[in-house]
Amino acid sequence: MKILITGFTGFVSQHFLALLNEMEPGSSVLGIDKNKPDFNFSAFPELNISFENIDLLDREATEKILDYFKPEYILHLASVSSVAQSWHTPLESFVNNTTIFLNLVEQIRVKNRKCRILSVGSSEEFGEVTEAELPLTEEHPLKPLSPYAVARVSQEMLSKIYADGFALEIIMTRSFNHIGPGQKDLFVIASFAKQFVQLSKENITKNTITTGNLSIIRDFVDVRDVVKAYYLLLKKGKRGEVYNICSGNGIVLKDIVSSMAKILNLDVETVVNPDLIRPTENKKVVGSYQKLKTELGWEPEISIEKSLKDIIGYWQNEAK
Amino acid sequence: MKILITGFTGFVSQHFLALLNEMEPGSSVLGIDKNKPDFNFSAFPELNISFENIDLLDREATEKILDYFKPEYILHLASVSSVAQSWHTPLESFVNNTTIFLNLVEQIRVKNRKCRILSVGSSEEFGEVTEAELPLTEEHPLKPLSPYAVARVSQEMLSKIYADGFALEIIMTRSFNHIGPGQKDLFVIASFAKQFVQLSKENITKNTITTGNLSIIRDFVDVRDVVKAYYLLLKKGKRGEVYNICSGNGIVLKDIVSSMAKILNLDVETVVNPDLIRPTENKKVVGSYQKLKTELGWEPEISIEKSLKDIIGYWQNEAK
Repeated sequence: MKILITGFTGFVSQHFLALLNEMEPGSSVLGIDKNKPDFNFSAFPELNISFENIDLLDREATEKILDYFKPEYILHLASVSSVAQSWHTPLESFVNNTTIFLNLVEQIRVKNRKCRILSVGSSEEFGEVTEAELPLTEEHPLKPLSPYAVARVSQEMLSKIYADGFALEIIMTRSFNHIGPGQKDLFVIASFAKQFVQLSKENITKNTITTGNLSIIRDFVDVRDVVKAYYLLLKKGKRGEVYNICSGNGIVLKDIVSSMAKILNLDVETVVNPDLIRPTENKKVVGSYQKLKTELGWEPEISIEKSLKDIIGYWQNEAK
Repeated sequence: MKILITGFTGFVSQHFLALLNEMEPGSSVLGIDKNKPDFNFSAFPELNISFENIDLLDREATEKILDYFKPEYILHLASVSSVAQSWHTPLESFVNNTTIFLNLVEQIRVKNRKCRILSVGSSEEFGEVTEAELPLTEEHPLKPLSPYAVARVSQEMLSKIYADGFALEIIMTRSFNHIGPGQKDLFVIASFAKQFVQLSKENITKNTITTGNLSIIRDFVDVRDVVKAYYLLLKKGKRGEVYNICSGNGIVLKDIVSSMAKILNLDVETVVNPDLIRPTENKKVVGSYQKLKTELGWEPEISIEKSLKDIIGYWQNEAK
């Protein structure tokens, strides 16, 4: 396949490349990002990869890229995806999630290009949910509760208009919390793993790790399962439809801590950092992937135990 | 009051000024718009009105205006409000409804200003509705069906975030089809009235007027009632709440044509222009203003008959 990947330097992109390297050797990939990639393309020997350092807010640069590369597929991963950050810079969060998307799809529309586009969204779009409403299906009403979530809902509504009103081949996702090797320690599971690995390297009698609220329950899905869903949706997803990508399981954060302690054979105490507690947050969020299973046969395959082991392995490797 | 009015050159603004001239003589008004006003400020002798020709997309200009005027209230009327146009320039429609709003409220937030803001929205936000769901209350789910409607829903979601998350005093509306003297003939009722007045001035044996689909039923509310609601909401609306502004009555367009024919004592035939038929549109849309009535005592006071007579009077005056 000939695919443009936005948000190329992120960890999801690398896992997608690994999948594509296996599934469709010979594929052409153009990566774009406003940051530069810090990984080596030689890890994906079967792919023809090139990279352009552009900001999708730059409409002319975006136009040029599409004109010369002429992608058959676009995997739109680019996003300022931090909820916390969106409270500090709400305007930038909104514009960097909506205008960058519009700059892409407007070019596809205006030039009447044939191209299938995956618009990645987030479970944050659901906003406030009660336990009685779980698991969340795609039909559940959206009540976004952060600037980031509003931006994602806007992107999804725009996708629907471009798909239904302009007949663009856009498919949308609501991706739940993904985890996996390579994720930055801004995210909770990666942060725990990094701290655990540091502790295991040191000879400290009192082991403590810093956390936020450990009683919340989230639906964690391994990034390697996520990119399989992205690949399937790019190939066979229905135009204008939105798909949950999740594990279907709720896991309480304190069990993640216990599992990691067990894997590394460590005794730890947890210390809550109040800065990591969000003012309002759902106690429990679990999604349903029934639609993706029924339509495309997708199911998550990687257990939480394997995810955690691999994440710890990643941080052990990083620490070397 | 000291009020900034955006979208100052539009017809809603003029009716708001007339109300303010009566209700709060001595008020200071700063109008801003990217177009220049074509009306005379001397019609509002009790107000201190000034005008600045700026585009709200210009963040620095917006900042300067707020810095020097220091409004206590903002009536945010500015919008690229044509649904049809939004299908031709979806990106501009989206940016001109969301970024201009963000440029305003971000300044209020960052500088921690005390200011009550009315964010005007549209009944278009509801999107597809069935007759069984009427009249529409504020709780009805939003399924926007045009780029314009998506932009308006985004603006409303952003308003909610700024109100609930940043404690800004923002109140939102979903304003239904407003009609009244001064409205441009881009809009259906004004277009009918203008055509009727032209016919009444000529001695033509065969009277025809050009229309779109005359069987659709809409909730028309007189702009003079609308601006009363805006005034009340600016003063007493609840932060972060959205209010329908509507008449509560559904009127079929062909009855509007008959009423105008009767007012002018004309016999007319209608000719449908296929260009004026929208690909998808609701057969019937009627809103409920119960929330605005219960909380603030607002009710529409101007009958459709009076609205139509005054609109015809306006076009007769224009034709002189």
